[in-house]
Amino acid sequence: MAAASTSAPLPSARFRCFAGCAGTFPVTRALYTCPTCGGLLEVAHDLDALAHMRSGPAWRELFDARWSPRVTASVKPSGVWAKREWIAPELPDEDIVTTGEGMTPLYDAHRLAKEVGFGELFVKQCGNAHTGSFKDLGMTVLVSVVRHAKRIGALPVRAIACASTGDTSAALAAYGAAAGLPVVVLLPHGLVSTAQLVQPLAHGAKVLALETDFDGCMAIVKELAARELVYLANSMNPLRIEGQKSVALEIAQQLGWDAPDWVVIPSGNLGNSAALHAGFAMAKALGVIERLPRLVIAQAERANPMYRAVSAGRSTVEAVVAQPTQASAIRIGNPVSAPRAMAALRAMNGVGEAGSAHEPADACARADRSGLYACPHTGVAIACAMKLRARGVIGERERVVVVSTANALKFTEFKLAYHERRIEGASSRLANEPVVLRADVETVAAQL
Amino acid sequence: MAAASTSAPLPSARFRCFAGCAGTFPVTRALYTCPTCGGLLEVAHDLDALAHMRSGPAWRELFDARWSPRVTASVKPSGVWAKREWIAPELPDEDIVTTGEGMTPLYDAHRLAKEVGFGELFVKQCGNAHTGSFKDLGMTVLVSVVRHAKRIGALPVRAIACASTGDTSAALAAYGAAAGLPVVVLLPHGLVSTAQLVQPLAHGAKVLALETDFDGCMAIVKELAARELVYLANSMNPLRIEGQKSVALEIAQQLGWDAPDWVVIPSGNLGNSAALHAGFAMAKALGVIERLPRLVIAQAERANPMYRAVSAGRSTVEAVVAQPTQASAIRIGNPVSAPRAMAALRAMNGVGEAGSAHEPADACARADRSGLYACPHTGVAIACAMKLRARGVIGERERVVVVSTANALKFTEFKLAYHERRIEGASSRLANEPVVLRADVETVAAQL
Repeated sequence: MAAASTSAPLPSARFRCFAGCAGTFPVTRALYTCPTCGGLLEVAHDLDALAHMRSGPAWRELFDARWSPRVTASVKPSGVWAKREWIAPELPDEDIVTTGEGMTPLYDAHRLAKEVGFGELFVKQCGNAHTGSFKDLGMTVLVSVVRHAKRIGALPVRAIACASTGDTSAALAAYGAAAGLPVVVLLPHGLVSTAQLVQPLAHGAKVLALETDFDGCMAIVKELAARELVYLANSMNPLRIEGQKSVALEIAQQLGWDAPDWVVIPSGNLGNSAALHAGFAMAKALGVIERLPRLVIAQAERANPMYRAVSAGRSTVEAVVAQPTQASAIRIGNPVSAPRAMAALRAMNGVGEAGSAHEPADACARADRSGLYACPHTGVAIACAMKLRARGVIGERERVVVVSTANALKFTEFKLAYHERRIEGASSRLANEPVVLRADVETVAAQL
Repeated sequence: MAAASTSAPLPSARFRCFAGCAGTFPVTRALYTCPTCGGLLEVAHDLDALAHMRSGPAWRELFDARWSPRVTASVKPSGVWAKREWIAPELPDEDIVTTGEGMTPLYDAHRLAKEVGFGELFVKQCGNAHTGSFKDLGMTVLVSVVRHAKRIGALPVRAIACASTGDTSAALAAYGAAAGLPVVVLLPHGLVSTAQLVQPLAHGAKVLALETDFDGCMAIVKELAARELVYLANSMNPLRIEGQKSVALEIAQQLGWDAPDWVVIPSGNLGNSAALHAGFAMAKALGVIERLPRLVIAQAERANPMYRAVSAGRSTVEAVVAQPTQASAIRIGNPVSAPRAMAALRAMNGVGEAGSAHEPADACARADRSGLYACPHTGVAIACAMKLRARGVIGERERVVVVSTANALKFTEFKLAYHERRIEGASSRLANEPVVLRADVETVAAQL
């Protein structure tokens, strides 16, 4: 494995405006939007220093060596921190807060592929994670940077906070607990059940139910962040994208450092689409892969502003009012990361697609019958991939990777509703219910 | 890496009686108990052939190389099949049915360790798995062997079956679905909710609710197996132990091929205790580790036949009537693998311990506050470890590994009951509930 030359410039990473305003800023600063234009920030890496440090093949070799079982190694066994030079190069070991995130299986869905006519179909199982969703990947970076910034005195905040009713609050609370940092979760009173909040409650987060709607919670958490009372962990925070881009790197690595033909991702706030592009683009720039895959941004029909923009040939995304969908985590009408996702779509020759209200439930049932256990968001992605295959956009010999964003164990009620035929519009063609029988060997044998 | 000499005998594995009756049998045969004495079977490996094949250091090197991301490699990316020569050496590649099981994180619980006075405390996260429990590890072996046996015409059964209301049925149904093999699940009618069965239903298993109790279901599935109508997947099947022993191998591997001082495992049917011993003993015999860890078999106070036997100095386990416990998966009064677990305890200088009704809930809450998210069975294990530490049985500088057997996402109601102070006897000292507030920045800021 090539060692870094001691005289080479060390790689660094800085915040900069995604729209191109001048100036860069330390990633340890509590900055969530561009101070000039108010738009999105991104993390800029020093690609020259990284290229000088190692060739593409040497990076591959290093990353393969770090896909490792050792808990005692100086590089922690984590899919994110295994790529630390590309993610948060200046973060000291001692500040890393990890639960062993990443290194999730790339499930070879060959039975489903055969059934629905794909050449090769893989499912990247990001829900097979400490808190049960891909949010762990971004949160390990955010919480580690906050711990570092607090330790060096760069961040005077008391707590890390988010407005969230789901996976974001679960991941933030778990990493906050692992780090010993206080976490505050704001959510609309009366709109969320305690069961939905059991992860942040168990991890000891301060959960505040405010007498307002979700937008009201968001406005308050932003104001608290502006006053430097809390550090903001919501998805406009560009540090989360840095961790999430490891999904792209792992997919390529699991396929022998080759990009698939297509990557299909369910997307609401569009941060994960931006993250996939960031990962694949960096891998290509540094000689680790030779081409970018094509991107499918899969949305629920009732929350599809990106799909509408793409279908209309618009280069900007207009907000819609998102309607209820089984895929609750992507019920977002005004996605925060729309400009970055639009750029990702262009760079990756991508397409938008939307799954109707019932298609994802049927797609999940089909996937489950083949051995997967798909959350509704994964169902949206599979349904969209099937539509694109049926229309010939995805070719019959192409290799497709669907990103599964959450663990379906979080969605027992959704599964139950399908199998009890309670999802309006779903065919429930594969619904399966227990059969009650007399306790008699002959009776049971006759059923086999 | 040392290559196998072509003239060396190839390793093989055969069933044999655990109590020592004469004869061995192919693992592809539908045999669940010793044909002579009716007792437990085990899988006997040809240790001489394995030792001839590779030295201890060479096995380490091979296994480390196989902890790998590649989905296209001939050795599948699976923690079980990475050790295939030690598990099912004669199984052809094409019959392997895998979901990428194993290779689960060994979570460094340093915050909890400090709080409760352990030198080092790790949690092996077996619930971070395709179906959310350690049962995947055994089921990949069982279903793969069945697929192979059917393909070569050695097994005329129509379906694989189990009597189960929980993780076993979920794992069997998922692997059956992945393999395209029919699965039948028998359970007592009226005693199990559809929600508890949603995994096997989603995977398309035939779920038969019989008008009897659990023992009645067990009797019928055994009779169906005796008639060769089904292949029996319940835990007396020794193939499952073979996969589960990979937990021991991974723990040692993750600690740099060193056994910890203690391994603590929550145990009901005691198969996993037997599996840990099988794994560590094989690793020691083949020169991969130098010593065995000490074993703690952790039981719920209301289902503690092993603990009673050990406390009374008896070498056999007497059945008890198991009372309800939050740790439902280990509510077993008459454990199938008791003779093997008793042998494991002796060989590993082990101890039995039991957690009272409320201790596990409090232990889970404490663990969750430190970043873990512990299922009730893991809570039993942590509570037992804490008691042994308090009594000085576990020393203050010793390295302890707790095996977490299931994903706590399966136990939302248990978590909720604790935080809503509904668990009788639990202190609920760490109970955490949402605070309702006016939607006003000053009001919220005052709470921080």
